[in-house]
Amino acid sequence: MERQLFHRLLKPEEALSLIVEHFDPRPLGVEYVHVSEAHGRVLAEHVASPIDVPPFDRATMDGYAVRSIDVENASEISPVELRLIGRVEAGQRPDIEVDEGTCVEIATGAPVPAGADSVVMVEYTSLRDGRVLIYRSTYPGENIAFTGTDVVKGEIILRKCTRLSYREIALLAAVGVDRVPVYVRPRIGIIATGNELVEPGSVLDIGKIYNSNTYMLNAACIEMGCTTRIYGIVPDDENVLKKTIENAVRENDIVLITGGTSAGTSDITYRVLGKLGNVLIHGLLIKPGKPTVIADIDGRPVIGLPGYPNSALLVFDLIVRPLIGRMLCSEEKCEEAEAILVKRILGAQGRRAYVPAIIVERNGKLLAYPLEAPQGSISPVVNADGYIIVPEDREFIDEGEKVKVVIEQKERPDLVVIGSHDYTLDKILTELAEKGYKIKQVVTGSMGAIIAVSRGIADLGGIHIIDEETGKYNEPIIKKLGIEDKVILVKGWKRLQGIIVQKGNPKNIKSIEDFLRPDIRIVNRNKGSGTRHLLDLYLKKIAQEKGIPFQELVRKIRGYTYEVKTHTAVAAAIAQGKADAGIGIKQAAELYNLDFIPLTYEEYDIIINKESVNKKPVREILNLLTGYTSKEGCLNNY
Amino acid sequence: MERQLFHRLLKPEEALSLIVEHFDPRPLGVEYVHVSEAHGRVLAEHVASPIDVPPFDRATMDGYAVRSIDVENASEISPVELRLIGRVEAGQRPDIEVDEGTCVEIATGAPVPAGADSVVMVEYTSLRDGRVLIYRSTYPGENIAFTGTDVVKGEIILRKCTRLSYREIALLAAVGVDRVPVYVRPRIGIIATGNELVEPGSVLDIGKIYNSNTYMLNAACIEMGCTTRIYGIVPDDENVLKKTIENAVRENDIVLITGGTSAGTSDITYRVLGKLGNVLIHGLLIKPGKPTVIADIDGRPVIGLPGYPNSALLVFDLIVRPLIGRMLCSEEKCEEAEAILVKRILGAQGRRAYVPAIIVERNGKLLAYPLEAPQGSISPVVNADGYIIVPEDREFIDEGEKVKVVIEQKERPDLVVIGSHDYTLDKILTELAEKGYKIKQVVTGSMGAIIAVSRGIADLGGIHIIDEETGKYNEPIIKKLGIEDKVILVKGWKRLQGIIVQKGNPKNIKSIEDFLRPDIRIVNRNKGSGTRHLLDLYLKKIAQEKGIPFQELVRKIRGYTYEVKTHTAVAAAIAQGKADAGIGIKQAAELYNLDFIPLTYEEYDIIINKESVNKKPVREILNLLTGYTSKEGCLNNY
Repeated sequence: MERQLFHRLLKPEEALSLIVEHFDPRPLGVEYVHVSEAHGRVLAEHVASPIDVPPFDRATMDGYAVRSIDVENASEISPVELRLIGRVEAGQRPDIEVDEGTCVEIATGAPVPAGADSVVMVEYTSLRDGRVLIYRSTYPGENIAFTGTDVVKGEIILRKCTRLSYREIALLAAVGVDRVPVYVRPRIGIIATGNELVEPGSVLDIGKIYNSNTYMLNAACIEMGCTTRIYGIVPDDENVLKKTIENAVRENDIVLITGGTSAGTSDITYRVLGKLGNVLIHGLLIKPGKPTVIADIDGRPVIGLPGYPNSALLVFDLIVRPLIGRMLCSEEKCEEAEAILVKRILGAQGRRAYVPAIIVERNGKLLAYPLEAPQGSISPVVNADGYIIVPEDREFIDEGEKVKVVIEQKERPDLVVIGSHDYTLDKILTELAEKGYKIKQVVTGSMGAIIAVSRGIADLGGIHIIDEETGKYNEPIIKKLGIEDKVILVKGWKRLQGIIVQKGNPKNIKSIEDFLRPDIRIVNRNKGSGTRHLLDLYLKKIAQEKGIPFQELVRKIRGYTYEVKTHTAVAAAIAQGKADAGIGIKQAAELYNLDFIPLTYEEYDIIINKESVNKKPVREILNLLTGYTSKEGCLNNY
Repeated sequence: MERQLFHRLLKPEEALSLIVEHFDPRPLGVEYVHVSEAHGRVLAEHVASPIDVPPFDRATMDGYAVRSIDVENASEISPVELRLIGRVEAGQRPDIEVDEGTCVEIATGAPVPAGADSVVMVEYTSLRDGRVLIYRSTYPGENIAFTGTDVVKGEIILRKCTRLSYREIALLAAVGVDRVPVYVRPRIGIIATGNELVEPGSVLDIGKIYNSNTYMLNAACIEMGCTTRIYGIVPDDENVLKKTIENAVRENDIVLITGGTSAGTSDITYRVLGKLGNVLIHGLLIKPGKPTVIADIDGRPVIGLPGYPNSALLVFDLIVRPLIGRMLCSEEKCEEAEAILVKRILGAQGRRAYVPAIIVERNGKLLAYPLEAPQGSISPVVNADGYIIVPEDREFIDEGEKVKVVIEQKERPDLVVIGSHDYTLDKILTELAEKGYKIKQVVTGSMGAIIAVSRGIADLGGIHIIDEETGKYNEPIIKKLGIEDKVILVKGWKRLQGIIVQKGNPKNIKSIEDFLRPDIRIVNRNKGSGTRHLLDLYLKKIAQEKGIPFQELVRKIRGYTYEVKTHTAVAAAIAQGKADAGIGIKQAAELYNLDFIPLTYEEYDIIINKESVNKKPVREILNLLTGYTSKEGCLNNY
């Protein structure tokens, strides 16, 4: 086989068309499964009905099979009398013929006997001494389902490539198909590499992380209809990796390897693939996902994916999913759409950026909300509906601009909640989740709620933002931003904010000014959170008093850039000794049995998008809120 | 247990709340499965993260770990020189500390060594004799993902009741959860009754039909996350049924029985359930689905569903699905919505009617298109997205009125095609299906296309309607109905219509007038089809010539009310001897090797909803059409 490694980074669509041309992926073959086991499989042949449905002229009512000509003049006043000559049950072959002046009792579903051309419903008859009085005329064909009127013998009832749900299964069984031709499931081998990996369930030493890629890819492949084989974690050892890949190539149709693909010193996957076969592609012009390797070993695609789960998933979506799709005849599943960006995002300097995003539809338009997180974060993997695409040549895209998006997660949540973290809100959402509502919750802080709820990305969110001038909570910011017509503010509950410190306060912290001490390391909250806003207000006052610029002041605070996203995270960081102090609410300190220095009561309220007010889960929350309002947030379940 | 049979028909919501109160259905217990087997299962507990993610301060770039204070003044012109004291790989515990004037080489994903507070990207450095030149300053925290900034130890990361996709699986594995608490799968036993039933794959005698309910319910229960056990077909024999139900109750959490529930003479399920336990409900105030029986046997729900698949499915959706849902904590899944009815429908005289319907969204509004079919039809089971609800007190609901709908089928097709049947169109759609597009196709005839496409229910459909005055096809009807602003007419191809007769034309049929002969039985097409319209035009002329009313004329034609939906069905009926003649296109006659008496060429065109023109599958069809246009419909693949 000729060497054809590309020495430049490829766009994903170039890479895909190159490997599609190279491997010509197509269904792997047909197997026959019993109709009781065909659920979720992909039909491999057009299915023509082997029978008519109904397979005979069938009575659709209980009554009497008659000749319409005999009952032409029947009415309530002058019924026609017919001689009853027999009865046909469902499942019976009728051995009687209806002649002039006679009728046959017939059950729903039974075959209409010869001679009869209609069925009189039992309600319009009466039986007297073996004779039947008919009170109504019939038209030819009345209450009869004729042979083949539902499905006709020879008709194509299902096309190949149909994924079989219970509905198609019902149809297959109804026409008598017991052995269903389906495509053979592609077999996917999954290998993880990296000395830093350990398996879930084992102890995590410093420097190690859990192998999540294997299980993510395993589930994604199963969801697509593949079978999978997991080869565990291979250490960064060329010989072991080589052996494992050789086995995997023998036992599977596609082999996925995660990790060990970067251009750095540990680019072991690339080297091994080069020795075992033909490396076709090394590097994609995207961010994340650049360190991708695609090789041909013994004619099988072997794909090295980046190590971070979000990067691995992106390359899976762009390259592996379409490849598997072609083996199950669904190449075109993922369609690009256009959405309105609700928050400015940055590009990736010459590479195409795929930014994980929440994508929702409002009034027929798509809106995209980027999920910002440090590289390698796992949370966007759970929360994203898909990606926003930032073209190679864009430095940034501004709020309000149109963007291309790819939607991956098709099942829509019943409720989207974006905003500040709160225990009481968590409890309410848990109640809803237990009722079966699918909730997407992203903790971003109060400003996230303001943006996401007012733009219609989220149905609701919690906020607690103090107004510097009036000292009032929440109402002023909504008025200042002019979003009163977009959102409804529902009063929530009061929370006590303060300084969370180690149990016993060993560093003797008394006020926020202590954060400037060189022996104190704090944990901060994310920008845009109400709590961060509160801390910065205090710090601005201190800066003013000291006569130094705010930016200079915060550079003196150790841990000011150590940002976490929830109150719990602040308390956890302090409990684990990673910080001495942080700002948070009292419940968080209690949760971790830490000491707490009260600063101020604040008002935590809920804003709801006006168009979401009538959604069922939102109404339920409004009901629950009346039960919770004016109580201080409670911790019962946490 | 007290007897509490209701002697009146119950509304489904009454029946459901009664059995929910009676059985108190709830999750059946918790089991632990490995994360590699948790896909699709329902989480049974809130999962709190046992670790921080990242679990240590992690470098997000390849580069050098430094103290930001050391490189404060570094720039391109005056780089800062640091002594390289070691290297940390991913997976390594760093045993070095960064002191003043030193740095440590670090790989992406490796733990940042003590002392360092930032990472300089390798791009902004150069290495010279064991010393590193740094060309850029850093801020504290730069290129470091701090411990717990993604997920914090103790944080609730997933709520119970979450159905686990590959995304949630990735998160579980990333925090090290190997044994996942999930709800035990409900066990569903499925019994079919009825002497008329035979299993798919066996020979179908007259009067028999295939058992489809068992396989439909089996797949629907598996789709919900249950395990199932199939008990086959039980003949209408009380003892056999009794034994089977006893076994099924012992082995399952819910038992479903289809058939044998009607109030007629064969109401065997009701009698047996009464003997084995406590019948709670007998009869629902709905159409279809009235003959439903719900009993308590040894504390387990045993539910008798009607025999027709569409009726059984409706009762499954209304009663069984919510019951199983409560065992997997998803009670509220199916929400009623409001839609605009696009075609008048009839009510069910005192019962609530559930009419299967195609339900689509256009410009943020739902539209509902009822699928009319004789009672017991299987085709609406495949095509319906859900039901239109006609309240008990409504005789009918008119086109344009608002109706309540229940949406059952959540996966949206990529393309909805409603209209006249044609082989060439079929072939085009098959090409699309093979590319992975999910197509919903309903054959209704030309008038169905006119309604469905102009109202936005369907993306496109085929029509062939001749104008009586001008003799022109298709354009006149669109102008007459004033829908030029709604649809685009794309010229299709010509088809030859004629009389299809037995091979050799044994009854010597020469023209449509022969249809009046008493020895001729025809097969007709459905009302609203272009072919029916064509036949009626010919018959009107004959009626005029003979000076008798049209209605009287058609009463003389045997089989005029024997209506089938496709050209294939017409030909099949003739080939199988069920009719002597029928109107259809030449390809259908050829398909079944029948004789054909030409009548006229007609023009088969495609109408496309204007708003659908830019949908990807529609564009593909337009491309394909240029290849097919002006060729006569071809039969290559059929």
